[in-house]
Amino acid sequence: MRLLTDEACRAGVATDRSGHRPATLPDGVVRATTVDDVVETLRWATENRTPVVTRGAGTGLAAGSSASAGEVVLDLSGMDRILDIRPDDQVAVVEPGVLTADLDAAAGVHGLFYAPDPASAAISSIGGNIATNAGGLRCAKYGVTREAVLGLDLVLADGRRLSTGRQTVKGVAGYDLTSLVVGSEGTLAVVVGATLRLRPRPLETATLAAHFDDVVAAAAAAAAITAARLQPSVLELVDSVTLEAVDAARGSALRSLGAAALVVQCDGRGAGAEIDAVAEVVGKFATTWRATTDPVEAEELLAARRAGLPALEATGDVFIEDVAVPRSKLAEAVSGIGEISARTGVRIATIAHAGDGNLHPIVVVERGGTVTQGPPWEAACAVFDLALRLGGTLTGEHGVGLLKRTWLKTELGEDSLDVQRGIKAVFDPLGILNPGKGI
Amino acid sequence: MRLLTDEACRAGVATDRSGHRPATLPDGVVRATTVDDVVETLRWATENRTPVVTRGAGTGLAAGSSASAGEVVLDLSGMDRILDIRPDDQVAVVEPGVLTADLDAAAGVHGLFYAPDPASAAISSIGGNIATNAGGLRCAKYGVTREAVLGLDLVLADGRRLSTGRQTVKGVAGYDLTSLVVGSEGTLAVVVGATLRLRPRPLETATLAAHFDDVVAAAAAAAAITAARLQPSVLELVDSVTLEAVDAARGSALRSLGAAALVVQCDGRGAGAEIDAVAEVVGKFATTWRATTDPVEAEELLAARRAGLPALEATGDVFIEDVAVPRSKLAEAVSGIGEISARTGVRIATIAHAGDGNLHPIVVVERGGTVTQGPPWEAACAVFDLALRLGGTLTGEHGVGLLKRTWLKTELGEDSLDVQRGIKAVFDPLGILNPGKGI
Repeated sequence: MRLLTDEACRAGVATDRSGHRPATLPDGVVRATTVDDVVETLRWATENRTPVVTRGAGTGLAAGSSASAGEVVLDLSGMDRILDIRPDDQVAVVEPGVLTADLDAAAGVHGLFYAPDPASAAISSIGGNIATNAGGLRCAKYGVTREAVLGLDLVLADGRRLSTGRQTVKGVAGYDLTSLVVGSEGTLAVVVGATLRLRPRPLETATLAAHFDDVVAAAAAAAAITAARLQPSVLELVDSVTLEAVDAARGSALRSLGAAALVVQCDGRGAGAEIDAVAEVVGKFATTWRATTDPVEAEELLAARRAGLPALEATGDVFIEDVAVPRSKLAEAVSGIGEISARTGVRIATIAHAGDGNLHPIVVVERGGTVTQGPPWEAACAVFDLALRLGGTLTGEHGVGLLKRTWLKTELGEDSLDVQRGIKAVFDPLGILNPGKGI
Repeated sequence: MRLLTDEACRAGVATDRSGHRPATLPDGVVRATTVDDVVETLRWATENRTPVVTRGAGTGLAAGSSASAGEVVLDLSGMDRILDIRPDDQVAVVEPGVLTADLDAAAGVHGLFYAPDPASAAISSIGGNIATNAGGLRCAKYGVTREAVLGLDLVLADGRRLSTGRQTVKGVAGYDLTSLVVGSEGTLAVVVGATLRLRPRPLETATLAAHFDDVVAAAAAAAAITAARLQPSVLELVDSVTLEAVDAARGSALRSLGAAALVVQCDGRGAGAEIDAVAEVVGKFATTWRATTDPVEAEELLAARRAGLPALEATGDVFIEDVAVPRSKLAEAVSGIGEISARTGVRIATIAHAGDGNLHPIVVVERGGTVTQGPPWEAACAVFDLALRLGGTLTGEHGVGLLKRTWLKTELGEDSLDVQRGIKAVFDPLGILNPGKGI
């Protein structure tokens, strides 16, 4: 085990993309490239009672892998091999540092795909996806990361190795330790390998972009698509603040078409017919819409969504929130966020996975400003409160991390937290795995 | 709390459909109709250190709800209300005693369906489905029970109430207690309510039945369907022993068409085109095949599968096994089961969910014979061993219950069981919930 302690190394692993800046640096970092490195690190940590913050690509948005003085960082980004792809079983076996998009590309060679697709797929790792139970755009149809993880290879806090789950699609022997570790944000065990489910890559896609007078009409159209029993693989809502930023960045005129947009994609056999049915529904609500089965034109229609975050990031520092509400409350949530922005004077753009009710309100502050305290944080907290009042959750897919921890008791209640702390103690009796994060 | 102690009541709740017959009867049974009944029963049980065996419709196949002297049974079959169906959110809220098919029918009124479909759907309850993480025919495409459960209302062993999960499609606040309780076979908590995910009911279906010279050709055809990236909602393999039983029961001549059959159903937009593609693949392996989009004709094609178990049950007492293997090992598994049958002289028929590698070898003994000891049980154990050697699991969807418990350590290992016992102790420190079952 080699603990790197020079300041540049420690500074490079001190936080993630949440905007959180710890006051101190971690004591050191181990760059693991083998399972043995992880075992050795955890044995040492147990012996020395030293907290370990496990880290993948560092793209988290809740400060789940931020680390401070007294802690060491276990960096798994170097464990980045795809160990096996078995097309007949539609299964991949990977190390945790593999980037999500790289796995998807490797699956593509066999006509398969890896369904979970966080917007960060090009830069986030499978291990981080597992730590947060990452979602993405295609979840309403294909499920989140948990539904794609069949089994895990773990190293426990004391350095013992443990395999969970199975290589089969079904299996119910014993408690579901796999699902328990998925989303546990590095607090239960260190994931050193994963057996993942792949799916047949859809042969056809069809795409539609529609514009609306206001966000209420766009949300109503999204609800009508669901009510019509259509099941797009992508159903994204983009608000006016985002459209303005995209126009400024790309020289487009999307905002002039309306104050909100929906981007819809259908896939699989009959995608063209399904998008026609979507168009028929959307047409009743939209100011204008366009559909295509041409992949190049599709990229243009998707631009309003894909270019949204980079365009906002070009205008300042951002804090990306991640609340989810029952699908029927989507319009109320987006309107409520607009009111919070107006009341607090904090700029908030909203992009939402309308298909599953997961909203990403994006708080934008001026460059170098702080997003995790003061008015921006108060606005963020008002959004948490709104989501809970609408029967929703603090976090749909980014995790609790450090930043949302104070809110967790409000959502879960003391009895639930008690049980969860009991489970934490079973896995990590000394409390050395990512203390102060997640639960 | 009213404890019924007359012998008829106790005898009626002593076991399930596994064929296991406990040597003694439980001490009594509480027929709960409200959450308060459950709370009161568990408080009493905690106070008196009395083990509680929770029971739904009693259709389990692993003796998971069998009960003996010293135990009381908590019968939830009377808590059978569908409390809410919210079509806009595609969510249902139910009590545990609701029969699976009743929920599906109620969802159908809104153009929705409940995707998990154990073959027992007409007689099994949602609570039992949750206890075993029940699967069924449509899992390869739509997932198992765990993927349909968004949240649970629980009563803990000491009578405290606890809600897990959420009303939203996505959510990652805290550990996934919901997934932990799904499949825990009544050993962690008593499920008194569930928030379930519904899906758009497919508008179209298309069905195909194909016959093959042998089971190896049928398995190869199933693998070729997967390799062609087709995703049927149903992909079932039926062996010659089953076909013979169906012929005897129905006067059909399916066995004369070949020694194995596949029944395939595609659904959703483009189902007809997808079944044509299936036919093209299957045609290379089959002796004969027939496809239809007509629902009445489809029922006839499905008969080979649907009539299989009742036809076998007409010939003797059955023990339905439930192993799963990686999909690529399906042919090897079916052939291996045939060899075990030949070697032991025990009659074993096999029906398999070929789409997900889950096999149901059905051990048939003469009426009144014992299936859980002697040669039939030895044959069953040989099948467990085969499944594990092929990289599979003891149980795909029926659970461990009482019957497979001695095999669990072989599959999971001691370290995993240690962690699971630790989790059990967090939920149920006195060990009063369904002791001796599951883990």
